[in-house]
Amino acid sequence: MISVVLLGAGNVATHLYKAFLKSETVSVVQWYNRTRASISSYANDVDITDSLDELKEADIYIIAVSDDSISQLSSDLPFSNRMVVHTSGSVAMHDLDKKNKIGVFYPLQTFSKTAEIEFSEVPICVEVYEKENLTLLKDLAKAVGCKPHKITTEQRQTLHLAAVFVNNFTNQLYRIGHEICETKNIEFKILHPLIEETAKKIQQMSPYMAQTGPAKRNDKKTIKRQLKLIEKEEHEAIYKLLAASIKKTHNLTSRPVTKK
Amino acid sequence: MISVVLLGAGNVATHLYKAFLKSETVSVVQWYNRTRASISSYANDVDITDSLDELKEADIYIIAVSDDSISQLSSDLPFSNRMVVHTSGSVAMHDLDKKNKIGVFYPLQTFSKTAEIEFSEVPICVEVYEKENLTLLKDLAKAVGCKPHKITTEQRQTLHLAAVFVNNFTNQLYRIGHEICETKNIEFKILHPLIEETAKKIQQMSPYMAQTGPAKRNDKKTIKRQLKLIEKEEHEAIYKLLAASIKKTHNLTSRPVTKK
Ligand SMILES: NC(=O)c1ccc[n+]([C@@H]2O[C@H](COP(=O)([O-])OP(=O)(O)OC[C@H]3O[C@@H](n4cnc5c(N)ncnc54)[C@H](OP(=O)(O)O)[C@@H]3O)[C@@H](O)[C@H]2O)c1
Ligand SMILES: NC(=O)c1ccc[n+]([C@@H]2O[C@H](COP(=O)([O-])OP(=O)(O)OC[C@H]3O[C@@H](n4cnc5c(N)ncnc54)[C@H](OP(=O)(O)O)[C@@H]3O)[C@@H](O)[C@H]2O)c1
Repeated sequence: MISVVLLGAGNVATHLYKAFLKSETVSVVQWYNRTRASISSYANDVDITDSLDELKEADIYIIAVSDDSISQLSSDLPFSNRMVVHTSGSVAMHDLDKKNKIGVFYPLQTFSKTAEIEFSEVPICVEVYEKENLTLLKDLAKAVGCKPHKITTEQRQTLHLAAVFVNNFTNQLYRIGHEICETKNIEFKILHPLIEETAKKIQQMSPYMAQTGPAKRNDKKTIKRQLKLIEKEEHEAIYKLLAASIKKTHNLTSRPVTKK
Repeated sequence: MISVVLLGAGNVATHLYKAFLKSETVSVVQWYNRTRASISSYANDVDITDSLDELKEADIYIIAVSDDSISQLSSDLPFSNRMVVHTSGSVAMHDLDKKNKIGVFYPLQTFSKTAEIEFSEVPICVEVYEKENLTLLKDLAKAVGCKPHKITTEQRQTLHLAAVFVNNFTNQLYRIGHEICETKNIEFKILHPLIEETAKKIQQMSPYMAQTGPAKRNDKKTIKRQLKLIEKEEHEAIYKLLAASIKKTHNLTSRPVTKK
């Protein structure tokens, strides 16, 4: 049995809590948040607190608070020599106070409180300061059905950067697709199957092989027609830059596309 | 029973052929391609030809050839007053020779010969010149289990533009994620669950609501750190433009992000 104290009550902490609850080999002995109200609805199921001085003993303390507050919170912990990890993709492990045994437990997924997640499919990137603590973090990942990946700080930060491209930036392209549809009274929903298939395709072939469309075909007529159709300057800039990027990737002419 | 002659043997024609084959109310009476070799493996199952003069009679002729060749091929057809459609997202319906009854049968999906598709989930955008032919196209879509959407030329071209953003450009972001992973010897596969969840999420909430990450949080420290981590100028330009786009969408400061 691995005992855990959760610190923070945001998207990640809430999903972790639910995943731990389902596991037979993890027990959440306490849940801390500076604002008690955010976790008070769980008071019947788990010991909750808003005071660091009341923190109970546990095998692992998981700090799942905003990136900027991780370092301070780790210093404020009123104990030493225990295992303390954060869940961030970008914060350095060494930002954690070294009075404790430190590590990272980074779930590589996008969490929102409202969207359900199949937690067992989330890759967990683990990192430790002292090698002997690796097994504990790996076991914790496995206890919730996840695959642990031992990585370095640099790899984690690189993964986080890649995640920004494939998640945040991709989502912004969906947003633009939504805006474009709205200008002509088209339901965005009609694009859902295409969006899903685009995401699925790269599990069967590389994104390089999966590419199609006017830029990949270097179909100048269609590109010109589409640039004329675009109403927002911001969309036009993104179209040009990404079309040029596709051409470059596929070794097509890199002359910039113009509207005229 | 709806009888169909297919013209072309690319990604779309091949997927259409397979979908029609499964349908009990569609019969492919003939398959034409200028290059016989591409379809000769189907010769046992369907009448194949590479000669327009040999084309048989059918309810619908589906021209699924490269955009640039649609107009010419429709003029070359040695008959008139029959139903002829193309499958393109961007070519105007009026590019089809009006000696025949014309229309569009545009499957809004990304097709590659190797990737299997659940065809019944493909939205079919239909358009006709003469209203009385609409039912036939709708029936053909329904015969393969698809939902037909009656749209205008302008709406179809807008949809195609939106599709370029959510499909081709998104796929290019996947490609960049792949490149970034490779520089640090990280398996791209570890991003698959994130990519799938990002695509799934917008079926539950709008892309606007689904957005997360450093740009959405206006987290300048992380953005700076990430820009430093980027090795390719091209990736940097895309990062800056899309981060700025996210900030604009969410009404955050629009000062450009700099590397220093
Ligand atoms: N969301 C994701 O998709 C995701 C994915 C992987 C990793 N992560 C990482 O997981 C961590 C948590 O992210 P999240 O999305 O769950 O955050 P979130 O939903 O914004 O929640 C932030 C939590 O941090 C607490 N907090 C903020 N400032 C604090 C302070 N000064 N002292 C103590 N607590 C403070 C907040 O407490 P109050 O309730 O009192 O405001 C809240 O409970 C971050 O390191 C993030 O990078 C996030
Ligand atoms: N791929 C997609 O994801 C997708 C999705 C929706 C709609 N569409 C549209 O569907 C249509 C076909 O696309 P595709 O991806 O299936 O194309 P494709 O895989 O590139 O195949 C093109 C086909 O067109 C034929 N062709 C090319 N030039 C020709 C000419 N001058 N005369 C006669 N035949 C010619 C080729 O014949 P050969 O075998 O002899 O070369 C080939 O059979 C296009 O209008 C496209 O915009 C495509």
